[in-house]
Amino acid sequence: MEQKLQELKMRLAEAADLDAAAALLTWDQSTYMPPGGALARARQLATLTRLYHERFTDPAVGRLLDDLRPYEESLPYDSDDASLVRVTRREFERMTRIPSDFLGDFYQHSSSAYQAWTQAHKENDFQRMIPFLEKTLELSRRLANFFPGYQHIADPLIDFADYGMKASALRQLFATLRQHLSPLVLAIAAQPPIDDSCLFKRYPEERQLAFGSAVIRRMGYDFDRGRQDKTHHPFTTKFSLGDVRITTRVQENYLGDALFSTIHEAGHAIYEQGIPMAFEGTTLAGGTSSGVHESQSRLFENIVGRSRSFWHYYYPSLQDMFPEQLREVPEEAFYAAINKVTPSFIRTDADEVTYNLHIILRFDLELDLLEGRLEVKDLPRAWHERFDQDLGLVVPDDARGVMQDVHWFGGWIGGVFQGYTLGNLLSAQFLEAALQAHPEIPGEISQGQFGTLHAWLKENIYQHGRKFTEPELVQRVTGEPIRVEPFIQYLHQKYDALYHLNT
Amino acid sequence: MEQKLQELKMRLAEAADLDAAAALLTWDQSTYMPPGGALARARQLATLTRLYHERFTDPAVGRLLDDLRPYEESLPYDSDDASLVRVTRREFERMTRIPSDFLGDFYQHSSSAYQAWTQAHKENDFQRMIPFLEKTLELSRRLANFFPGYQHIADPLIDFADYGMKASALRQLFATLRQHLSPLVLAIAAQPPIDDSCLFKRYPEERQLAFGSAVIRRMGYDFDRGRQDKTHHPFTTKFSLGDVRITTRVQENYLGDALFSTIHEAGHAIYEQGIPMAFEGTTLAGGTSSGVHESQSRLFENIVGRSRSFWHYYYPSLQDMFPEQLREVPEEAFYAAINKVTPSFIRTDADEVTYNLHIILRFDLELDLLEGRLEVKDLPRAWHERFDQDLGLVVPDDARGVMQDVHWFGGWIGGVFQGYTLGNLLSAQFLEAALQAHPEIPGEISQGQFGTLHAWLKENIYQHGRKFTEPELVQRVTGEPIRVEPFIQYLHQKYDALYHLNT
Repeated sequence: MEQKLQELKMRLAEAADLDAAAALLTWDQSTYMPPGGALARARQLATLTRLYHERFTDPAVGRLLDDLRPYEESLPYDSDDASLVRVTRREFERMTRIPSDFLGDFYQHSSSAYQAWTQAHKENDFQRMIPFLEKTLELSRRLANFFPGYQHIADPLIDFADYGMKASALRQLFATLRQHLSPLVLAIAAQPPIDDSCLFKRYPEERQLAFGSAVIRRMGYDFDRGRQDKTHHPFTTKFSLGDVRITTRVQENYLGDALFSTIHEAGHAIYEQGIPMAFEGTTLAGGTSSGVHESQSRLFENIVGRSRSFWHYYYPSLQDMFPEQLREVPEEAFYAAINKVTPSFIRTDADEVTYNLHIILRFDLELDLLEGRLEVKDLPRAWHERFDQDLGLVVPDDARGVMQDVHWFGGWIGGVFQGYTLGNLLSAQFLEAALQAHPEIPGEISQGQFGTLHAWLKENIYQHGRKFTEPELVQRVTGEPIRVEPFIQYLHQKYDALYHLNT
Repeated sequence: MEQKLQELKMRLAEAADLDAAAALLTWDQSTYMPPGGALARARQLATLTRLYHERFTDPAVGRLLDDLRPYEESLPYDSDDASLVRVTRREFERMTRIPSDFLGDFYQHSSSAYQAWTQAHKENDFQRMIPFLEKTLELSRRLANFFPGYQHIADPLIDFADYGMKASALRQLFATLRQHLSPLVLAIAAQPPIDDSCLFKRYPEERQLAFGSAVIRRMGYDFDRGRQDKTHHPFTTKFSLGDVRITTRVQENYLGDALFSTIHEAGHAIYEQGIPMAFEGTTLAGGTSSGVHESQSRLFENIVGRSRSFWHYYYPSLQDMFPEQLREVPEEAFYAAINKVTPSFIRTDADEVTYNLHIILRFDLELDLLEGRLEVKDLPRAWHERFDQDLGLVVPDDARGVMQDVHWFGGWIGGVFQGYTLGNLLSAQFLEAALQAHPEIPGEISQGQFGTLHAWLKENIYQHGRKFTEPELVQRVTGEPIRVEPFIQYLHQKYDALYHLNT
């Protein structure tokens, strides 16, 4: 058995090496690659990805997994070895059930859909995208049907990112959340707007980067096992557990972009850096799901990074770094500015109160499309209606409406958005549990200390890597399933005061 | 046939993609990788290299090469397709004749030898390296014997880097060169030394990098298909014909290091960038040999980059860039400083006159070792005697003597040094041919124009990629075999004047 397990690990490590090389090719493409490298890079990436897939789905891996089943069953569920076999089998089945012909068709279609979208988005031409989206919808349904036995057709698609979460439960959870959010957003919109002009002065790039680095280093991002580079779109990537990199972009006329996206990506990266080295090269060496991953980035970005305690400690250093820009701005005004709530059209610009309404809207429309209750051609109308209802805004065009996100236009429909809102919910629910164990955390943060928080996250979340599914982990860490209350409570506590609401 | 050729190309492209990914892993390791990435990176590189080797030596490649032989023979020798099959077969045979067991032993030994050397070099302890070197010598002989039928046991080893060059011919060529060089070096040493203190002022890094970039851009290095980053040891690497990168290092207290190593690496890179895109992903997509590659780097670094015409154009801009450091230094004094000749112990610090004596010494000792005429334990003595004879210097210790270069201590003995001197010889021989066709080249260079030179090199050398072997290419370009005279002539023309010699 020991020998079979070793062989499995060896095969997984080889696949992981190909995957890491592909990740480096991608990172380089976004950071340093000269334009002349583009053509060959696309081919190199395709080759590495294909070889990774081939290695991972090798029938020998399947045989090893079969042979190891008795060993797995003889071990506790949460042991390293049983978890390794279980999680690998889940991945193996996922990757082997989808016929490679289908994948070929799918990638080809999504590539042409993406091409068409880049143009149609610019020209606000949804009509042109209808046939593409209809095909995407059909392919998404076919994809789901490679995994029969589901309750809801979206379930297999959701499983790709948030294994074990079910569409029906999510729909309910999100409906409850929406019931709370929509009135809060409308109540805030009725108040005088916060002045956030202090964020829109000239903030030189170098100092923005220096400040962000200092912050995330203190939060626990280890620069000896990572680095930060500039890209067009910020992201986190991992080449090994000892090399987890983040990227950022800087707007010199807006302080909020680089700083909060740096903290956001660092949240993802601190998670990956906290996974035990013993998992290196195996399927356990990663965050467990899209939702849990996003909970870590949002926890650091929003719950910590936009909190009073945080800025109580950091605002003087920020003022020192940008004396001309911030000397006359009181801490309270700055705190209000970075927490300004405004209903807006674009998801990625949304504040933490309105954000989830953008996601829930997309999630519900995905389910409607998959269920056949909504036709692609009626998507803009449904979008406009819902947007008006939830955010009180009339969407001016489809470019700033249904066509704003690439997800449906270069990927599939179903399972691609829920992780964002799950992350926000979980960030509050996890913090609630952390505060129960360590009520001193906010006080420490207001002294620039993140050690207790970091240690709690490591102990309760990071150390498990991908051992547990999202529902399992939440139950284990908080003693309950995923709930909306902690997040709602967090929002009210913060925004009732900030906007003087009498709720 | 067309189909078989396509299949061969497809297989080669896949191998090339793995090779490119390995090259990127290496580049990243030397430029940006955080320390925490080291452990996994070694494993990733080993995996990618192994997979590359497996793909390239797949028996299916051998069958395709057999099947394509009639097609190859029906085509002109220098046609793209015939050359592709011929060069691929040569590589395939080289890689398949060496048993993988042997390679395993070899890599393991060279890795431990390298580890031991890093310590022994520091402690000037050659004794400790004797058993390692004896094993290296034995393995080098075994390696050569996988390629029976050679004239000299070093020939197969030389073939790895400079295919088609023979030890016996090289020994003669180098002996002739040495006969000319040694008296020149001694004559120069008898003259009053040149004052090069102007190079050892403080030169800020950023401006050194800016000047170097401006120079190589003008020389023909295409930054849209490459870039320059900082590393400990400068090198050139290629991820595709559209992405050929160089690296450099900067000493702020010495102007000569970054500038000339930048031009040197750019010479290598301009060669690779000049190879036709039609060769992308095949065995033809590269420089043909170590010697020809080095001829391109040395041509730009020395023959162009240390010439009067070059500095006639560039010295005013260099003075503008470093006014405080160079305002008072006349062009003539600067020209003399960058061409100062001093016998010294360390090869990599050597000027262009003494440099080849360092190489020839190593080359001769390699042959003596392989032939069994010299024992490993007697290597330091042989080194000291020869050094005294050729350079008039008493070697103070083995760290600055036989142990200075990593080549023998982390690789094999035989075939690893000749390329450097071949490169110097060829740089002069190629330029002689270029000047016969275009006597206007030096005049153009003195106006900062490199177009005619670049076009000639592209037409005569770059465009062939690896189609022709080194001897074939030299014959084709210059109408003669490799000769020492052009290089000797070049040195005398330059240094007789500079050192007022009456030769």
